[in-house]
Amino acid sequence: MDFFQVISLEEAQHRLQQKFSQNNIAIEEVSLLEAQHRFLAEDLAAAENVPDFNRSTVDGYAVKAADTFGAGEALPSLLMAAGAVRMGQRAEMILQKGQAVAVPTGGMLPEGADSVVMVEYSEQFDADTIAVYKPVSPGENVIACGDDLRRGEPVLVRGTWLTAKHIAMLAACGISKVHVYRPVRFAIISTGDEIIEIDQPQQIGQIRDINSYGLAAMIAQWGGEVAYRAIVKDDYDALKAAMEEGLRQADVLLTSGGSSVGERDYTYQLMQELCQDDVFVKGIAIKPGKPTIAGKSGGKPVIGLPGHPSAAMTVFRVLMGTVLKQWGMQLQETIVPARLSANLPSAPGKTTFQMVQLRQEADGFIAVPVFGKSGMIHLLGHSEGYIVLEAHQEGLEQNQQVLVHLL
Amino acid sequence: MDFFQVISLEEAQHRLQQKFSQNNIAIEEVSLLEAQHRFLAEDLAAAENVPDFNRSTVDGYAVKAADTFGAGEALPSLLMAAGAVRMGQRAEMILQKGQAVAVPTGGMLPEGADSVVMVEYSEQFDADTIAVYKPVSPGENVIACGDDLRRGEPVLVRGTWLTAKHIAMLAACGISKVHVYRPVRFAIISTGDEIIEIDQPQQIGQIRDINSYGLAAMIAQWGGEVAYRAIVKDDYDALKAAMEEGLRQADVLLTSGGSSVGERDYTYQLMQELCQDDVFVKGIAIKPGKPTIAGKSGGKPVIGLPGHPSAAMTVFRVLMGTVLKQWGMQLQETIVPARLSANLPSAPGKTTFQMVQLRQEADGFIAVPVFGKSGMIHLLGHSEGYIVLEAHQEGLEQNQQVLVHLL
Repeated sequence: MDFFQVISLEEAQHRLQQKFSQNNIAIEEVSLLEAQHRFLAEDLAAAENVPDFNRSTVDGYAVKAADTFGAGEALPSLLMAAGAVRMGQRAEMILQKGQAVAVPTGGMLPEGADSVVMVEYSEQFDADTIAVYKPVSPGENVIACGDDLRRGEPVLVRGTWLTAKHIAMLAACGISKVHVYRPVRFAIISTGDEIIEIDQPQQIGQIRDINSYGLAAMIAQWGGEVAYRAIVKDDYDALKAAMEEGLRQADVLLTSGGSSVGERDYTYQLMQELCQDDVFVKGIAIKPGKPTIAGKSGGKPVIGLPGHPSAAMTVFRVLMGTVLKQWGMQLQETIVPARLSANLPSAPGKTTFQMVQLRQEADGFIAVPVFGKSGMIHLLGHSEGYIVLEAHQEGLEQNQQVLVHLL
Repeated sequence: MDFFQVISLEEAQHRLQQKFSQNNIAIEEVSLLEAQHRFLAEDLAAAENVPDFNRSTVDGYAVKAADTFGAGEALPSLLMAAGAVRMGQRAEMILQKGQAVAVPTGGMLPEGADSVVMVEYSEQFDADTIAVYKPVSPGENVIACGDDLRRGEPVLVRGTWLTAKHIAMLAACGISKVHVYRPVRFAIISTGDEIIEIDQPQQIGQIRDINSYGLAAMIAQWGGEVAYRAIVKDDYDALKAAMEEGLRQADVLLTSGGSSVGERDYTYQLMQELCQDDVFVKGIAIKPGKPTIAGKSGGKPVIGLPGHPSAAMTVFRVLMGTVLKQWGMQLQETIVPARLSANLPSAPGKTTFQMVQLRQEADGFIAVPVFGKSGMIHLLGHSEGYIVLEAHQEGLEQNQQVLVHLL
């Protein structure tokens, strides 16, 4: 491991931030539903008041609240029926003292009205008279113009990863098209003589290309694209050709499996060549994931991920999350507090990513560490997330509060 | 509201389960990456042992552990160099007592070896001799055949909503194609004279079609499809035509906005007609969301959702989640424990869905109720999830533990 110059995770992230301060991802305008799971490329503010009229929240009668004060079952307020507002139409009349105007739920209050009496607490006495059996206060059963959102108020910020909730919010603002970043394109190259396609018959000693699938699925989950994918033997020329093709087609080049120290491992050598010696991460003090390398080629990130699938997925998330954030794209992450089920030793000087299972108890979640020696299917299948032990931490104690990053 | 016969949420869900015990959604075989965010339609078990050979987890020398007992810096065990296993190839030799065979990380252990000495704790003395400076125990640095998964062991169950983690697990099992349900198709019809398309200029009294977008985005998030979408005025013939077309094209018909009690509201009447009187939910004791109706037409669910967008989204999630589960599709939901920031009154006899914001404090999450009177953008924009108050609950107290369903 003599060529590794291990640095801290913070330092690796800091270098990524410095190297990739520029965002070369194009911005495109898409319709609202196409925007789902894309990163918003603009700050959005309300173009109008929402609602843009005083709106009733119930079926009933628009009134001046003062006209209902003191009303009761025994002695109703009697108001003059002054017409009806129809759904979806402007209230043309101006409500005078002593009048009541019928309004449906969602309907517009006429000018002069400040509240709505629910239909349940009123009665049409005769053609001209409405009886009100319960007083209302000013503003009751009304959403006033701009109550939900005032013109110019910020709605969503650049970098938001758009989900169903955001789509509904934007629809309510009348925003039907938004500017988003085009999907970030990734190239994934798996290296190693032992790596085969997952649908190939497996010979003794061979390993299926799990990493490509795990990484591609994570990329798809964020709204990214896999533009190029290859499995390459430990062969200098073949690996060079694949890496060059990957860099041509994608914004980010990922290699996996080749960054440990095999005798016939060309990944590191080729990264030096393609990045013109700008390989600025050569090992990170993290567990698992130490043999991680990162460089810059033609302005694009080139990341050599560790071979172990769960390590590859964690490292990819942490490093790529840093780059995407720097590019103005904020990965959504769900973090939940939990209490640790058992003492957990730290790896001194290393940031440790510990996979955990979550168990729900009466007073919260319990995080149960899952150990992965026996392999990745067991590890992934039993884990709901991971916790991060900082390099300076002395280990964690049973019942200590931890934060679990959900997978 | 005289036609409403309000039932409890549990009763509504029970009726949905009974009415839709049959799943008419076709099953299709897709490649692994296409399977992401689809519902698995089969139980999957391991077709082979994983790994299917004894695999080294380090670069080093395969040995019999007993040969290293007592080894130390001062007095190494000296073993006979008996060749090397190459990556991705079968170990052909049989390791004899006193021998050491070089193996790379991920390589196969030769027969007779039970452990691997890390390269860091060994040295090639001369062409024939390996010095071992630290003892290993049997099984050390080895993943034994079948350790991760034994042939026939269950991997994933039918109904799983497949995410990146599952894709990686299946790739590791060598499963490259899976049977999933084809996307469930929805028709969404928004009714009301006041409803306009979101990109239309808004006149006073009109409301944009927020619900279609919120619902469509939720559907897309689950891997479903919107097969038909329409905005229909309060007109019997137009609404009938739209509902019939929706039922032709989709597996589930959703209407929104028309199930309150406007004078000119034909949704309920048409549901009775299209469902041939099989409308089995006519109001649910939930808050918000009381004016919810549900029926069955040609075996398909027809759900009339409340008009308020956040109510529509919550009710859709709860009712459709029940139907999908009955159909063998398990919606993924993230539920986190939190402490309530303030007393919360209940609505007696009603199940209450209360939107909350989450604040992280040293010892866990605090759930802060968000009140939505002022409209849905505010409500959605400030909420991270919702809590459910059961109909029999007397209200919740400050600092009480609650479960938050994340949006």
